[in-house]
Amino acid sequence: MLKEASGEKQMGFRTESDSIGTKEVPKTAYYGVQTLRAAENFNITGLKLHMEFVNSLAQIKKASAIANREVGLLDRNIETAIVKACDEILDGSLHDQFIVDPIQGGAGTSANMNANEVIANRAIEILGGEKGNYDIVHPNDHVNMGQSTNDVIPTAGKITALKLLPKALMQLSRLNDALEAKAKEYDNVIKMGRTQMQDAVPIRLGQEFKAYSTVVKRDIARLTKVTEELMVVNMGGTAIGTGINADEEYLNKIVPALNSVTALDLRQAEDLIDATQNVDCFVAVSSALKTCAVSLSKMSNDLRLMSSGPRTGFEEINLPPKQNGSSIMPGKVNPVIPEVMSQVAFNIIGNDMTITMAAEAGQLELNAFEPVIFYKLFQSIETLANGVNTLVDNCIIGITANEERCKELVDNSVGIITAICPHVGYKKAANIAKAAIKTGEPVRKLLIQEGLLKESDLNEILDPVGMTEPGISAKYLLSH
Amino acid sequence: MLKEASGEKQMGFRTESDSIGTKEVPKTAYYGVQTLRAAENFNITGLKLHMEFVNSLAQIKKASAIANREVGLLDRNIETAIVKACDEILDGSLHDQFIVDPIQGGAGTSANMNANEVIANRAIEILGGEKGNYDIVHPNDHVNMGQSTNDVIPTAGKITALKLLPKALMQLSRLNDALEAKAKEYDNVIKMGRTQMQDAVPIRLGQEFKAYSTVVKRDIARLTKVTEELMVVNMGGTAIGTGINADEEYLNKIVPALNSVTALDLRQAEDLIDATQNVDCFVAVSSALKTCAVSLSKMSNDLRLMSSGPRTGFEEINLPPKQNGSSIMPGKVNPVIPEVMSQVAFNIIGNDMTITMAAEAGQLELNAFEPVIFYKLFQSIETLANGVNTLVDNCIIGITANEERCKELVDNSVGIITAICPHVGYKKAANIAKAAIKTGEPVRKLLIQEGLLKESDLNEILDPVGMTEPGISAKYLLSH
Amino acid sequence: MLKEASGEKQMGFRTESDSIGTKEVPKTAYYGVQTLRAAENFNITGLKLHMEFVNSLAQIKKASAIANREVGLLDRNIETAIVKACDEILDGSLHDQFIVDPIQGGAGTSANMNANEVIANRAIEILGGEKGNYDIVHPNDHVNMGQSTNDVIPTAGKITALKLLPKALMQLSRLNDALEAKAKEYDNVIKMGRTQMQDAVPIRLGQEFKAYSTVVKRDIARLTKVTEELMVVNMGGTAIGTGINADEEYLNKIVPALNSVTALDLRQAEDLIDATQNVDCFVAVSSALKTCAVSLSKMSNDLRLMSSGPRTGFEEINLPPKQNGSSIMPGKVNPVIPEVMSQVAFNIIGNDMTITMAAEAGQLELNAFEPVIFYKLFQSIETLANGVNTLVDNCIIGITANEERCKELVDNSVGIITAICPHVGYKKAANIAKAAIKTGEPVRKLLIQEGLLKESDLNEILDPVGMTEPGISAKYLLSH
Amino acid sequence: MLKEASGEKQMGFRTESDSIGTKEVPKTAYYGVQTLRAAENFNITGLKLHMEFVNSLAQIKKASAIANREVGLLDRNIETAIVKACDEILDGSLHDQFIVDPIQGGAGTSANMNANEVIANRAIEILGGEKGNYDIVHPNDHVNMGQSTNDVIPTAGKITALKLLPKALMQLSRLNDALEAKAKEYDNVIKMGRTQMQDAVPIRLGQEFKAYSTVVKRDIARLTKVTEELMVVNMGGTAIGTGINADEEYLNKIVPALNSVTALDLRQAEDLIDATQNVDCFVAVSSALKTCAVSLSKMSNDLRLMSSGPRTGFEEINLPPKQNGSSIMPGKVNPVIPEVMSQVAFNIIGNDMTITMAAEAGQLELNAFEPVIFYKLFQSIETLANGVNTLVDNCIIGITANEERCKELVDNSVGIITAICPHVGYKKAANIAKAAIKTGEPVRKLLIQEGLLKESDLNEILDPVGMTEPGISAKYLLSH
Repeated sequence: MLKEASGEKQMGFRTESDSIGTKEVPKTAYYGVQTLRAAENFNITGLKLHMEFVNSLAQIKKASAIANREVGLLDRNIETAIVKACDEILDGSLHDQFIVDPIQGGAGTSANMNANEVIANRAIEILGGEKGNYDIVHPNDHVNMGQSTNDVIPTAGKITALKLLPKALMQLSRLNDALEAKAKEYDNVIKMGRTQMQDAVPIRLGQEFKAYSTVVKRDIARLTKVTEELMVVNMGGTAIGTGINADEEYLNKIVPALNSVTALDLRQAEDLIDATQNVDCFVAVSSALKTCAVSLSKMSNDLRLMSSGPRTGFEEINLPPKQNGSSIMPGKVNPVIPEVMSQVAFNIIGNDMTITMAAEAGQLELNAFEPVIFYKLFQSIETLANGVNTLVDNCIIGITANEERCKELVDNSVGIITAICPHVGYKKAANIAKAAIKTGEPVRKLLIQEGLLKESDLNEILDPVGMTEPGISAKYLLSH
Repeated sequence: MLKEASGEKQMGFRTESDSIGTKEVPKTAYYGVQTLRAAENFNITGLKLHMEFVNSLAQIKKASAIANREVGLLDRNIETAIVKACDEILDGSLHDQFIVDPIQGGAGTSANMNANEVIANRAIEILGGEKGNYDIVHPNDHVNMGQSTNDVIPTAGKITALKLLPKALMQLSRLNDALEAKAKEYDNVIKMGRTQMQDAVPIRLGQEFKAYSTVVKRDIARLTKVTEELMVVNMGGTAIGTGINADEEYLNKIVPALNSVTALDLRQAEDLIDATQNVDCFVAVSSALKTCAVSLSKMSNDLRLMSSGPRTGFEEINLPPKQNGSSIMPGKVNPVIPEVMSQVAFNIIGNDMTITMAAEAGQLELNAFEPVIFYKLFQSIETLANGVNTLVDNCIIGITANEERCKELVDNSVGIITAICPHVGYKKAANIAKAAIKTGEPVRKLLIQEGLLKESDLNEILDPVGMTEPGISAKYLLSH
Repeated sequence: MLKEASGEKQMGFRTESDSIGTKEVPKTAYYGVQTLRAAENFNITGLKLHMEFVNSLAQIKKASAIANREVGLLDRNIETAIVKACDEILDGSLHDQFIVDPIQGGAGTSANMNANEVIANRAIEILGGEKGNYDIVHPNDHVNMGQSTNDVIPTAGKITALKLLPKALMQLSRLNDALEAKAKEYDNVIKMGRTQMQDAVPIRLGQEFKAYSTVVKRDIARLTKVTEELMVVNMGGTAIGTGINADEEYLNKIVPALNSVTALDLRQAEDLIDATQNVDCFVAVSSALKTCAVSLSKMSNDLRLMSSGPRTGFEEINLPPKQNGSSIMPGKVNPVIPEVMSQVAFNIIGNDMTITMAAEAGQLELNAFEPVIFYKLFQSIETLANGVNTLVDNCIIGITANEERCKELVDNSVGIITAICPHVGYKKAANIAKAAIKTGEPVRKLLIQEGLLKESDLNEILDPVGMTEPGISAKYLLSH
Repeated sequence: MLKEASGEKQMGFRTESDSIGTKEVPKTAYYGVQTLRAAENFNITGLKLHMEFVNSLAQIKKASAIANREVGLLDRNIETAIVKACDEILDGSLHDQFIVDPIQGGAGTSANMNANEVIANRAIEILGGEKGNYDIVHPNDHVNMGQSTNDVIPTAGKITALKLLPKALMQLSRLNDALEAKAKEYDNVIKMGRTQMQDAVPIRLGQEFKAYSTVVKRDIARLTKVTEELMVVNMGGTAIGTGINADEEYLNKIVPALNSVTALDLRQAEDLIDATQNVDCFVAVSSALKTCAVSLSKMSNDLRLMSSGPRTGFEEINLPPKQNGSSIMPGKVNPVIPEVMSQVAFNIIGNDMTITMAAEAGQLELNAFEPVIFYKLFQSIETLANGVNTLVDNCIIGITANEERCKELVDNSVGIITAICPHVGYKKAANIAKAAIKTGEPVRKLLIQEGLLKESDLNEILDPVGMTEPGISAKYLLSH
């Protein structure tokens, strides 16, 4: 990304300095010397900061300027300029000035300074100055006033996640609706249930989709619940949570100001020191995403199993064909949507591992590894949302059932012997089952042949719908 | 373990048979042919089922017998014998008859049948019969009546976890208490805060311990919350959650019966099909354990850092010496307790990965991989409890502070320059800091020398306790 | 385990002391004060050290005594007594004296001191003294002479792994043989190949088993190769690899002495400092186990898919029935052996994560987390060996093929259209495929009907065996 | 990315059709209907295929065209056009036409078809036709001739990794050189070694850097070795490795042709079926990257420890200041480069988990999850290379040592007592150590005071350099 920046046609350079020394910065650039050093130091993924994260930084800077002005620490005209610059970022117009890599050393200082510098330089312009004249608006003294990377960055991470999670939740909610619709649609389709890939006992296809919707609802509840953890922020804690350099009045005003800017319902952590050094809330969110990923991948695997075929598989359902399945095998249609859902799940689970390790690596007053935590967390949330989106639209809603085939498999199965068990005992039932498998004869026929049950009894006991609900067989037993 | 069993002096064997064929079972054994086959098929870890899991199985079998009798499906004398056999297991007297490996194929059928066979044979004896005479009490028809491995095993897993978790929570609660006590004890010990392993700004040692207690409290809350997920059981769902072969009345009675036996507050899942096939609740519990492990390992690492030395490290605190640190270096005392805590954390995090994969591998109506999930989950809970137990008793409560050393490090530090920043601006402050590091001169001296601040101002600004709370410096600025 | 130890009938106690203070040790115990403290400090898993690890420690102590005596640092009679004590351990007679937990803080000092104390006390007895009289043989000065926990423990870990790995390799080799036998046996069984769970093109069942054997061979090669990494040991490096307190002559003699005792081909690390602090070799071994686990789980999943049924699945092969599959569903036979193999794989993959984190956590001159690394590594190796053992004996060798069913699925499939593709082009072939799926008509019939190919051509093109080898169709095309 | 594509100013659309139906494709687009469907189906990460992967696809298509023409299956003019189109891709001119997401369902069919369509349409143009007129050059029949997604995609993945790995190896080699240079530079700097964060015995700073270089060399060897696994490709195996539709002559020519195009030394797999369905080679490569990541993160942690301070830490070395460390704490310089290296390591370790799961999920004749494997693998290789690049240039080569400080810590340490041990025994040495820690008196003084050793002896025994090499103390003992 650095190359891009230097690739743009520049009229020349301005000289900036920091504790390290002086450095030429493109004259047109809103970022400054510290951003440039960071871009050079961290050329890791070739990617840029997530744009919602940049927006979150702008919101924090805006809220801080407002709070600092209210407290009387910041001049109104500087505040106005900073707020305007922040609003421009939020409009998307300065996004190309955020050039640092999402994976960066320094606990996010580079991201914070990138924001501070861009906002300062734009504010300077707004106030009629020239970029780089930090006497007018200073990145640290004004834009970063009362803040530290160590309260700004985790807070920006939380705000960003709070913006992204509703999209994932909305998709999960759509998934739940789609699954429930299918549950109703197929409530009368009897099919074989399978445990451990072996024929078990009958179930209704609708019951299966209902079960999928139930687990999705549970995942929604978990993700909704865990979201609350993100609402506790450490703004005001500054460097290590002791609030050094933060005015007490500012401390009380910053979170309300931030809520007003973001329309969120954030709360200031009671223990700011803990909130600065511990990042367990991100582990908790990632864990909830991971748990959801597990459910979604399991469901996707089921869809692939049930739609396997068309001739040599289970062939109980059809997934809507969305693209040619093969470059060599004509007519092949593959379960590409469930496949991508599982890949998204594997991605999220791997990301969770990275987040776990990065969280564990925190030391003393700070976790320096937040950048990689955020990079992975945001990706997990977004790929989950995108994966579920395509799962709903390009798969679930278009699923059709092969009702005849499902029925045929039940009729031919041996597993229905289970319903006979309470009437003749496990041992005799097992013998009939073995004979059925060996001879290929229907279970029903063998039972009558062996004189174990009458046809009329069997009609009742082996009623397909009855077998998919509790109670029939045992009640029958008692009534006879 | 199989060897052990056959190693015992046996008067001989009895012949049992199942669908696979006949097999010699030690005459004295309460387990039967199916257990023996399982022990031969799964000689994986060399370990046995967790004893609390065995107890949970016994509780389920007891509750089922009671419920089935109430419904009229089971004779009272058989019920009485089954209940007595279960109570003997709960007394610990038949534990050696549970010989199957915790890692086993078959979704736990082997564990379930081990319980069914042991209980049946003991009940047979109680009723005056001889072991193996399953006409008297049958493992499947009587002991397993109205049940399936697929509702028994997940329910047993949940009950077991619900028994083990309180021990972990109790230890975490003790940890919280110990940390809070230290927080009070050291509330006046000023020390340097460090971010990214570099000198930052002052903090009080008590504040650090307070932060540890805060995150522990959060972990307690998470684990307590997630425990609720385990209270929803699928008893009555039988094979695949449709409740096949389960009488409707039994279905209504089994969970109350189980609550009466276990003194737990279990609820029957509304969607028994979902509850049979999805094991996300275990992923959620394991995730909460993992998140807690992350917090504990981070804290342990901090303790090792702060106690590093005694001469060439931070040396701010002393961990109580609990054993010789070295076989070659006399007098060396190592932070062995935090070290074991971190290892426990790594263990839990790895276990979470196994649990995640096993959960994802579920297919259609069942997750066949519950055995490894339980093996790992129980170990995670117990090692967490044991690790925290030793952390509290052998480390936290015995920690002492090197107050003088802590003060000295603050006095010599450059990081206090931060408090000066609001008064002279970031740039001038940075120059003073650089000069201080280069020359070794105290920051205070250089500030006076440069005419930037008066000594009296500095006394106020650099008040050590003041620097560990918000507001001082900025308020000062405004008042001058 | 501590309880056990104190539970034994003791005539009384002897008082021992170390840097921490004095402590009562059971008079009959061969372990001493340091072991006892360790057992109290680390009651984590409830397990004991792996017995092969204990043996490895004994071998190191024996080799060290021999080398130290040769150099003239150790009296011959002390050496003789130490060697005899070590031999007794290797005979298994003192194993119950090793009471420390495999997960322990302190980089293994507790395990090392447990060995030092047991050997010293037994050697004292051999020399006619009373246990605890360390003037005769001292745990540190004599048994641990020239050694440190930091060279002993990693070396013992490597020796142990080198003893366990051949068992795993032997089982993998048996698996390869069994798979190759099946490959030959089923070389003529034509079946449908499936990609992405959808019908693809024909393959021979023998080819599938051949592919399994090929990947197993690759895993054997990887594991064999990585084993070499374990042969480099840091004996002689003592505390941090600088060899402090190790005599130069001893340094040259210790590894040859160890090779003579163990019959291994160990080499002394050129860079002893690196070899003391880095444990990447264990990560490499665990990674190879993990990679193997991935292959084995994939194969196991395939076996479960191909044997799914018996009536509602693929039903191409039958796994040998090894135990009743269900407590409720009579006659059900489940793929329990592949299921346990996959669980073993998940276990190994989780263990690899723990090992990875523990390895990463090493600091400066030592990795303090080796105990958990070894605990997990040994378990991974052994469960792999045990899992593969049962996979071979109880699954692979007993597999049978449903040849007719396989043929039938090929005949009914649409996937064979692929072979037509070079002759009529992708587009026309795709249309035929769609029509076949829609109408249920055989592909062959539609092709003739549409006048696209003659029956005689189709006989050649669609020759089943021909379709499972390269070249037929294209050559045919050219020759017409 | 789809938006981008449709965002471009289009003169209009052309209608294309596939098995799914018809679809409007932007007239200017080189990609076709299948690519467009894929872009709509898989909008997951918002990223595009790795450009080197696109190039690898182009190389395969070029080689295939050449081989097919040589065999006489492809007309020379079509071949020439295809080759020219491929060369244009390799020049970078058509990269914007590759619009599919790296995470995609379908085992890479979408990536393969994107290449087939772009190349076909460009070849059509070259031959004077209009885009979309697939009678001239057909994506499947001509560009994909003799190929399948299932041999093209894994082969493209391997070629891409083989292109990226040398960059990582080159950076690791530079790291090794830089570390060796530091090892030489600091061979005379005596410092304290630390084990378990506690003072141990002296070491030379040069020895520490030497140890880092040794482990890096081992990682280079592992990565170099594992690279060989990638050289075995399954080109010619087509759909499932049986080589259906691949001419035998073509089968023999395709890999040599590919070697000629890529300048690599690829070999055709002997077992093409195995090579199509198993992706263990990618797990092996990822594992080697992970193992390397562990080593690099451990080293980075050490650098952060040794440079901790400047006043309240170890302060043994200084990392070159590369950017302002803090937005609030002036003058703070943080170890940002080691921090980013550790984050890269966590990223790689998480990626390895994703790759492991995706590899395990392969079923029967194919692994459908290769896209996510490649996405993660390429990122792991590149971030490793980039991380090490900045580690060398912005950290290692600029490290300076605080020689005086290092010496001072050794002189004040108690750990040197270890060297005394062989002369006075462990017990007496431990007592002196305890006294020294308690009183603060130097070890040396206490030893003389207690009459245990003479000053002249101590000068020899405690010679700092001597203590960092084996043999001195023991030899001394013998000579007295």
